[in-house]
Amino acid sequence: MSELTLVIGNKNISSWSFRPWILLKQSGISFQEIPMKLYTPEYSASIDKYSPSGKVPVLNDSGLQIWDSLSISEYLAEKFPEKELWPKDTAARAQARSIVAEMHSGFSAMRTHLGMNYCGRFNKEIPADALKDITRVQAIWTHCLESHGGPFLFGKKFGIADAFYTPVVSRFLTYGVELSPKALEYVNTISGLVSYQFWGEGAKAEVG
Amino acid sequence: MSELTLVIGNKNISSWSFRPWILLKQSGISFQEIPMKLYTPEYSASIDKYSPSGKVPVLNDSGLQIWDSLSISEYLAEKFPEKELWPKDTAARAQARSIVAEMHSGFSAMRTHLGMNYCGRFNKEIPADALKDITRVQAIWTHCLESHGGPFLFGKKFGIADAFYTPVVSRFLTYGVELSPKALEYVNTISGLVSYQFWGEGAKAEVG
Repeated sequence: MSELTLVIGNKNISSWSFRPWILLKQSGISFQEIPMKLYTPEYSASIDKYSPSGKVPVLNDSGLQIWDSLSISEYLAEKFPEKELWPKDTAARAQARSIVAEMHSGFSAMRTHLGMNYCGRFNKEIPADALKDITRVQAIWTHCLESHGGPFLFGKKFGIADAFYTPVVSRFLTYGVELSPKALEYVNTISGLVSYQFWGEGAKAEVG
Repeated sequence: MSELTLVIGNKNISSWSFRPWILLKQSGISFQEIPMKLYTPEYSASIDKYSPSGKVPVLNDSGLQIWDSLSISEYLAEKFPEKELWPKDTAARAQARSIVAEMHSGFSAMRTHLGMNYCGRFNKEIPADALKDITRVQAIWTHCLESHGGPFLFGKKFGIADAFYTPVVSRFLTYGVELSPKALEYVNTISGLVSYQFWGEGAKAEVG
């Protein structure tokens, strides 16, 4: 038996940590978590022993360090093939990897102006470039839900693509983003998951 | 037989396009290329027919669109297992995916201040945050070359990790970045590749 440990940042704000955490939870893969408080002297002093890049999340599998939310996801997909974390169909898998990669390196305006804040509720004017990102996210969701029948992006199972768009669901709720009916359906699906709520309990405990 | 077409941006500046292009070339996988001029009205008018995200690179495999340099690489690794685009060993593969993901979503200071410009040679002061990125890149290269024996990051074969760090080699040459002997060795290995030079011919033809 391997021992999986996931080092994560603050649950209220660490969108990158949320991805592999909810992927593990939804897939029923057991793991230990090590919480780190971002932007503290303690973080700077101790992150090096966990993470070669100095960033969270990092997965540790019996001594092997895997850093970054995407490489962790690929590692888990290979280690637990029975969980089908990627779609089985080649074309669907290519599509899933494309939208995951798009999220992994893009959407910088949305990231900047709609920072994840699980517990916060803000009413602010959203700049045009962030609105463009929001439109693109909704187009991705709509296309996937219509192509694969929902309720998740690639059908009946929560997978890596859903894990990568889960923090976006949190952003949309925090900033009261106006959404199409289809996108709202997906927001309700994700935010209704027990593991989504459970992460939120952790965020609330941090914020106090 | 499938027909692979890679849509790419300007060879002089499109670091994201360089990755899958050199991966395909070095692996001896045949493909057609469609060049697009970034930041032109023609690009804006026609990119939608190739790329759902509006960005390059995009791979088209007999009608299937795969966008983003990382998802293209994963797709090729699955389609051509005999090419061993990722290391065969599980731990090495996890490490390769981690440094690729780190490049895919990070190094923003280096990206901003040392924009890829294959043909350019500039002498400028490099800001501290970009220097930090450069130090991290050298640490990654040194660790990989020492762990796997070189001349490539994971041993004797050019793979996805090398493809992702190839544009960095170009940046280092453009800005005359001072490097450790080990890092310089890697820069020489990559910049000495025929396919690296061949991309450069294309860049020179563009710049005139």
